[in-house]
Amino acid sequence: MTDMDIFEKQAFGKKLGIGHRAAVLVIDFQVGFTSDAKFGGYNINDAIANTVDLLAAAREVNMPVAHVRFIAQQGGFDIGPFGEKVPNLRELTADNPDSAFVTTVAPIAGEYVAEKRHASAFFGTTLSSWIISNNVDTLFIAGCTTSGCVRAAAVDASAYGLRPMVVADCVGDRAQGPHEFALWDLSQKYADIMSLAEVKQYMQTLEMAVAA
Amino acid sequence: MTDMDIFEKQAFGKKLGIGHRAAVLVIDFQVGFTSDAKFGGYNINDAIANTVDLLAAAREVNMPVAHVRFIAQQGGFDIGPFGEKVPNLRELTADNPDSAFVTTVAPIAGEYVAEKRHASAFFGTTLSSWIISNNVDTLFIAGCTTSGCVRAAAVDASAYGLRPMVVADCVGDRAQGPHEFALWDLSQKYADIMSLAEVKQYMQTLEMAVAA
Amino acid sequence: MTDMDIFEKQAFGKKLGIGHRAAVLVIDFQVGFTSDAKFGGYNINDAIANTVDLLAAAREVNMPVAHVRFIAQQGGFDIGPFGEKVPNLRELTADNPDSAFVTTVAPIAGEYVAEKRHASAFFGTTLSSWIISNNVDTLFIAGCTTSGCVRAAAVDASAYGLRPMVVADCVGDRAQGPHEFALWDLSQKYADIMSLAEVKQYMQTLEMAVAA
Amino acid sequence: MTDMDIFEKQAFGKKLGIGHRAAVLVIDFQVGFTSDAKFGGYNINDAIANTVDLLAAAREVNMPVAHVRFIAQQGGFDIGPFGEKVPNLRELTADNPDSAFVTTVAPIAGEYVAEKRHASAFFGTTLSSWIISNNVDTLFIAGCTTSGCVRAAAVDASAYGLRPMVVADCVGDRAQGPHEFALWDLSQKYADIMSLAEVKQYMQTLEMAVAA
Repeated sequence: MTDMDIFEKQAFGKKLGIGHRAAVLVIDFQVGFTSDAKFGGYNINDAIANTVDLLAAAREVNMPVAHVRFIAQQGGFDIGPFGEKVPNLRELTADNPDSAFVTTVAPIAGEYVAEKRHASAFFGTTLSSWIISNNVDTLFIAGCTTSGCVRAAAVDASAYGLRPMVVADCVGDRAQGPHEFALWDLSQKYADIMSLAEVKQYMQTLEMAVAA
Repeated sequence: MTDMDIFEKQAFGKKLGIGHRAAVLVIDFQVGFTSDAKFGGYNINDAIANTVDLLAAAREVNMPVAHVRFIAQQGGFDIGPFGEKVPNLRELTADNPDSAFVTTVAPIAGEYVAEKRHASAFFGTTLSSWIISNNVDTLFIAGCTTSGCVRAAAVDASAYGLRPMVVADCVGDRAQGPHEFALWDLSQKYADIMSLAEVKQYMQTLEMAVAA
Repeated sequence: MTDMDIFEKQAFGKKLGIGHRAAVLVIDFQVGFTSDAKFGGYNINDAIANTVDLLAAAREVNMPVAHVRFIAQQGGFDIGPFGEKVPNLRELTADNPDSAFVTTVAPIAGEYVAEKRHASAFFGTTLSSWIISNNVDTLFIAGCTTSGCVRAAAVDASAYGLRPMVVADCVGDRAQGPHEFALWDLSQKYADIMSLAEVKQYMQTLEMAVAA
Repeated sequence: MTDMDIFEKQAFGKKLGIGHRAAVLVIDFQVGFTSDAKFGGYNINDAIANTVDLLAAAREVNMPVAHVRFIAQQGGFDIGPFGEKVPNLRELTADNPDSAFVTTVAPIAGEYVAEKRHASAFFGTTLSSWIISNNVDTLFIAGCTTSGCVRAAAVDASAYGLRPMVVADCVGDRAQGPHEFALWDLSQKYADIMSLAEVKQYMQTLEMAVAA
């Protein structure tokens, strides 16, 4: 029996489907994650390029959009053990150019923006509040890294009662193995994995519904 | 460059070390996780057997101990999308024998006990409050599954400012691949991985310190 | 200038209004709160009687309903400083008849139920998850005490992005002064105060909308 | 029987006492709260003046210090119903001079700083994480307003297992009635009320302990 067999035998990995109202969440597309000398690598830059499309489609149908990024205080004492485990994270202070949102996928007026000090986009932010006040029950998730902050957000999204849709073309990791394992693992327990094409098609149906 | 190379190049995976005051957290050692026909498999039963030792050592030195288990309401509507993704979880109601703590590692009087409805031991529980009122800054983590609820607890523990020490011999998964990947991934970003022998040795130094 | 004048001058206390989808939250109507020898007093029993009506009206229109109650572990060590401040709370263990839901306003099948160890219905529960998975953005709040757990839930509801509607006839306190001050204070900063008649009228409009 | 009698009869209002390790929390001492034309009034400016002393004493003994302030995004859509209830809060954006920390009690290097969008200093911040990673179990609370954000922080601090010590001389409100009621109510259920003199005396005992 392979690893996958036991998940299938125990009926893991059923499909969630999209709920009544969706939003887009973009995670940690910061300058420092575009370079493999810093926090980047593998397919993160591809994910950023694809997220330009995702954001354009979402904004076209007035879908709510949220952005989070990682910021530590000077010295990084505020991120606790996370900074001991990954010391370079302490460098991502507000005034470090590596902390800035990548321009092509940066927030525009009216979009929710939060700074976080840990992996999950929900931890120590008011993301869940913005979600509730917008009646959102489904999240299209883009960002990096797939096995780190994207995964943490998807797990928390499920815990908060949301339907996490990880947009496969719009999430990236610094290494291939973790990227692929995370997508498989998320699909078994917490999230649906969708292609960018599928998400854009869904958004077009919303647009037609509005136009009708 | 292998996957591991880039994590090393970016200085991931530094050692946390144990803090000033530790507690033990035991996750989801419930009857249903002892059988591969339900939620179990691979090395979960070994992890339970080893946790008998871990708990004995912790209780010997009066280290605080917390236990969490997964419980859904009748019908499972309360666990939301988690129950749509993994329908069998809806069966783990309070009156289902599969939901009971495994006897050999069950809570005793004075130990913190919480029921949870999602992966993380912190989500929707007062675990962080019990941790603060006990001045705890370090968690020795046992339980299952390594890639699921143990991982979620370790990620949240790090976010809450704790030093998560995953006790390798005391965590188990339904499949080997997810178990091993989760240990490696946790060690890179959020937690130290310790053997049961190392943890017991640390506990003995506490006992000697008290006796001295 | 009176106390009220400065709140008016600074434009506090605007009306929220009901959002797109409402639920009912019933807080701490437990046997021990029906007696002024335990945790009760003043108008709590009146609030319970009125909540019978509120629940009937809500169930008639299939409005989602949530119930929370306070439960401590044996010895009460798990509630931390709250038990040092109010020692009698430590007595409200699961097997104490005073901890039981008052029969006339007890949960029925399909309604969300959570146990809490602190004042707020949101703290250490999955109430916010149930709210999100039901697309709820408005809460009709009943329960006790107005100045304690009702207030804490209303403040947290606002923080979570919800529109808290405190049902004046359905909330009670052990003393009149705290009851009245809490209603005024909540109305200034966090919540609308509605009468039971107004809430029932709103529910009837929903019923007609469904019937139409 | 007066209101106070029933609280005494039910044994509310016992003393918590200081725990093993304390920190100072300063809440919302922002320029806009110094003027009764904006968010200020009554005794807030006195509280700020007294907090200068509190901070000096805390820094003398290297006690950890945290500061929080309220910030909304442009347009205030991100604060949800809170901004509908109190519209002026939407003006407190990051670039509004009224949002700035009052200079005399502003953070210095190494002190924890967080921005919040709701009443409680804990909600949507990582304050609890900083508390855990510093082994803190007691909070000396200064700030404004007593009946609003100070109260919310004290209630949440209790829920998080902390011992909240509200420093009476260092908290202020825009009106006298809410200030006084909040102090009484907090003292009954969640917090101890201490004078600045008492807190400074405690800090001096720490200093002597270090010197000894």
